[in-house]
Amino acid sequence: MFTTNPFYQELSENYLFAEIARKVDACRRTEPEAKIIRLGIGDVTLPLAPAVIAALHRAVDEMAAAETFRGYGPEQGYDFLLEAIREHDYLRRGIAIAADEIFVSDGSKCDVANIQELFGSNCRIAICDPVYPVYRDSNLMAGRSAQLQYLPCVEANGFLPEPPRTPVDVIYLCSPNNPTGAVFSREQLTEWVAYARRVRALLLFDSAYEAYIRDPALPRSIYEIPGAEEVAIEFRSFSKTAGFTGLRCAYCVVPRALPGRLNALWRRRQTTKFNGVSYPVQRAAEAVYSEPGQRQIAAQIDYYLNNAREIRTGLLAAGMTVFGGEHSPYVWWKLPVAMSSMAFFDQLLHECHVVGTPGSGFGDCGEGYFRLTGFGSCDATREAVKRITDRYLQ
Amino acid sequence: MFTTNPFYQELSENYLFAEIARKVDACRRTEPEAKIIRLGIGDVTLPLAPAVIAALHRAVDEMAAAETFRGYGPEQGYDFLLEAIREHDYLRRGIAIAADEIFVSDGSKCDVANIQELFGSNCRIAICDPVYPVYRDSNLMAGRSAQLQYLPCVEANGFLPEPPRTPVDVIYLCSPNNPTGAVFSREQLTEWVAYARRVRALLLFDSAYEAYIRDPALPRSIYEIPGAEEVAIEFRSFSKTAGFTGLRCAYCVVPRALPGRLNALWRRRQTTKFNGVSYPVQRAAEAVYSEPGQRQIAAQIDYYLNNAREIRTGLLAAGMTVFGGEHSPYVWWKLPVAMSSMAFFDQLLHECHVVGTPGSGFGDCGEGYFRLTGFGSCDATREAVKRITDRYLQ
Repeated sequence: MFTTNPFYQELSENYLFAEIARKVDACRRTEPEAKIIRLGIGDVTLPLAPAVIAALHRAVDEMAAAETFRGYGPEQGYDFLLEAIREHDYLRRGIAIAADEIFVSDGSKCDVANIQELFGSNCRIAICDPVYPVYRDSNLMAGRSAQLQYLPCVEANGFLPEPPRTPVDVIYLCSPNNPTGAVFSREQLTEWVAYARRVRALLLFDSAYEAYIRDPALPRSIYEIPGAEEVAIEFRSFSKTAGFTGLRCAYCVVPRALPGRLNALWRRRQTTKFNGVSYPVQRAAEAVYSEPGQRQIAAQIDYYLNNAREIRTGLLAAGMTVFGGEHSPYVWWKLPVAMSSMAFFDQLLHECHVVGTPGSGFGDCGEGYFRLTGFGSCDATREAVKRITDRYLQ
Repeated sequence: MFTTNPFYQELSENYLFAEIARKVDACRRTEPEAKIIRLGIGDVTLPLAPAVIAALHRAVDEMAAAETFRGYGPEQGYDFLLEAIREHDYLRRGIAIAADEIFVSDGSKCDVANIQELFGSNCRIAICDPVYPVYRDSNLMAGRSAQLQYLPCVEANGFLPEPPRTPVDVIYLCSPNNPTGAVFSREQLTEWVAYARRVRALLLFDSAYEAYIRDPALPRSIYEIPGAEEVAIEFRSFSKTAGFTGLRCAYCVVPRALPGRLNALWRRRQTTKFNGVSYPVQRAAEAVYSEPGQRQIAAQIDYYLNNAREIRTGLLAAGMTVFGGEHSPYVWWKLPVAMSSMAFFDQLLHECHVVGTPGSGFGDCGEGYFRLTGFGSCDATREAVKRITDRYLQ
C-alpha cells in the first residue's frame, strides 16, 4: 500500500489567507454598498506595458505560421532572453554573469520553492521572521522541520536579519523585503557575503522587488558585492517589475563559481522537471528590456512607489509608526491600537472598508504589524489613507 | 557548510540525447548539402490552430486594459478552463469528474515529475522499460533508487506491462505509450485497476497521447474503468493534442475519492510551489474545446496519424517488423540489422540522412528498437520512408 509524504502534516492549512478571503466576501455580502479598497494582496493592477503587448501579439502571430512556429524551447530559456537579461540586468551594472548561469522560469515562487531540492536533507536552513511563507513551507515539505531556524526581523534591527550566531548552512534573504519593505544597505549585504564565505554557507537572495530601489547607493543585485558569486544564488522576477503576475516569467542566477556543482545540479533539475516558459511570454519579457519597454515599466513602478509613499507619508503625518514604503511597494504599519493583527484586520475592514494583511500571517514576529501595498489605484490609495487617518488620527 | 542532494549522483548525465544532438550537428557540418529529415524528437511541427491563435490575441488585448487585466490567477487554473475540461474531456464521455479534482499546470513533464513529492520516501515504484525518462529520474532525485522496479515491455507482452508479482505501491503507466506506441485495451486497463484496488496501489496514468486514439473501443481515460477514481491519477496535456509544446499547458486529475487525502495534498503542493499557468495560454486551451477548435485540432492529429501510418505501412511493406503507429504518433521499429540501436542511429543518419531515436535511450528493453515519429511534414515523412526502404528492403 502506498504511503503519503508525512511532512505535509507539518504544514499549517494556511487558514489565515483563506479566512481573510472569506471575511472580505462576507463583508461584501452584508454591506453590498460599501466601497471596499484592497491593499492586501501583493498583486499588480496596471495593464501590461504597450511594448510588452506588441511583443506578445507578434509572437502569437509567429505561432500561427509553420515557418515561424516554435515547439519545445530550451528548458532554461531562449538565448534572446538570456542575453537580454545578462546585458541589461548585469553587464550594464558592471556584473559579469554568463548566459549559462541564468535560468528562466515561470515564476520566482517556483524557483524559491524548488531550489531546496538541490540541498542535502540535513542542511540547516535559516529564514526571516516575518517571511514569505514559501521559503518555510517548501522546506517543511522536504522534511527539514527540525533544521529550520528563524532570524527575527524586528524594529530594533530595522527588520533586517543579521548573520546568526548558531551555525546554519543555507540562508534565505529578501531585499527589498516582503513583507516589511526593509532594504539591505551595501554594508549590510557585504557583511552577509563575508559571513557566508567564512562559514561556507549559501545565500538565497530574493530580489523580486529590486526594480523599486531608487537610491543608487542601495544594492539591487547581491552580485554587486565582490565574492558573492561564490556564495549566492539570486532570484528575480518580471512579476512586480513589469506586471507579469498573470503572464508568468522569472529567472534565477546560479553562478558556476558556486561550490557543489550547483549550476550543473540546477540545470539537471530544470531539464528533468520543467519544460521552459511559454514562447510568447519569453518574447514579452525580452520586450521589457527594449527602450520603450524600460520607459513604460519605469512609469508603472513610479506609480506604485508613489502609492506606497502616499500611504507612508499619510500615516506618518497622522502620528502613526510606519516602516517600508520607500524603495518598496510594501508599507509595514505598526498597529495604532492594542489588539492582534487579525482583530485589527476585522476592525479596518468593517470600520474603514480597507483590506490589508495581518502581520501574523508572515510569522510570529509579524504580530503587531499590518502590511499595506502600493499596488492599488492612485485614487483608491488616497481614499484609503484618508479613511485610515480619519479613524486612527493620534 | 551546506551539502548537496546526494541522489543527483545516481542520475545518468543523459549523454545519449546530448550525443544525438552532437552527431546531427556534426553531420550537418560535414555534409552541408544533405537534406536531413528529423523523425526523432517528439515535438509537433504544425502551427497553432486558428481558433487558438484568435483566443491568444483576444487574451493579450485583455491584458492591455486596466478593466480586463488579470494578475495572479488561481494556482489550479481558472474556472473557465476547468469547466471546459470537465465537460468536454469527461462529462461528455460519461465520466463524472468535479472541477476541483482538475489541476491545470504548465506541462505534464512538471506534473509527472512533481507528483512523487506526495508519496512516502519508502514507496516502491514501478515503471516500464522502455520508459519516458522523467518517471525514473524524478524518483532517483528523491532517493528512491533502491525501490525502483522495472516492468519489461517487450514483443511477447505487446509492449504493455502486466501487474507485477512482487509488491509495488505506485505504478506509472502510459497509454498510448511513449516510446512504443502500444495502447491498453479496456480489458487490460480493467485488470490494472482491479490489481491496484486489490493491493491498494496507486496508478499514475499518463494519457498525453489520448487524442491519437481513433478506435472507440480503446479507453482514452482510465476513469472509463469503474472504480479507477479510487486508485488512479490521470495526466493530460495540450502539447500533442493541440500543438502547445511551445505554449505550455497541461492538467492532471486527482480524484477526491483517492486514499491518503491526495487531492488535498496536491492542492497544497501546487498552491505552495506553483503560481498558475499564463492567462492567455489558459484562454488558448479553452479555445481548443470550441467547435472550430475541436475541428481544427482533429485535422492536425489526423495529419500526424497519417504520417505515422505512412511510416508503419511503408516499413511493413518492405518486410520489416514495426509496432505502434496506430492510435499513436510513435512507430517502434525493430532494427532490420544486427547492431546496437546507437550504431543503427549512426548508420541511418549517414546513409539515409534520417534522424530517429535509439531505443536504448528509453531503457535496456529498448535496445534492438528505434523510435520514429509522425510529427514531421507529410512530404518529408514519405521521403524518409522511401530512403529507409530503399536501403533496408528485405
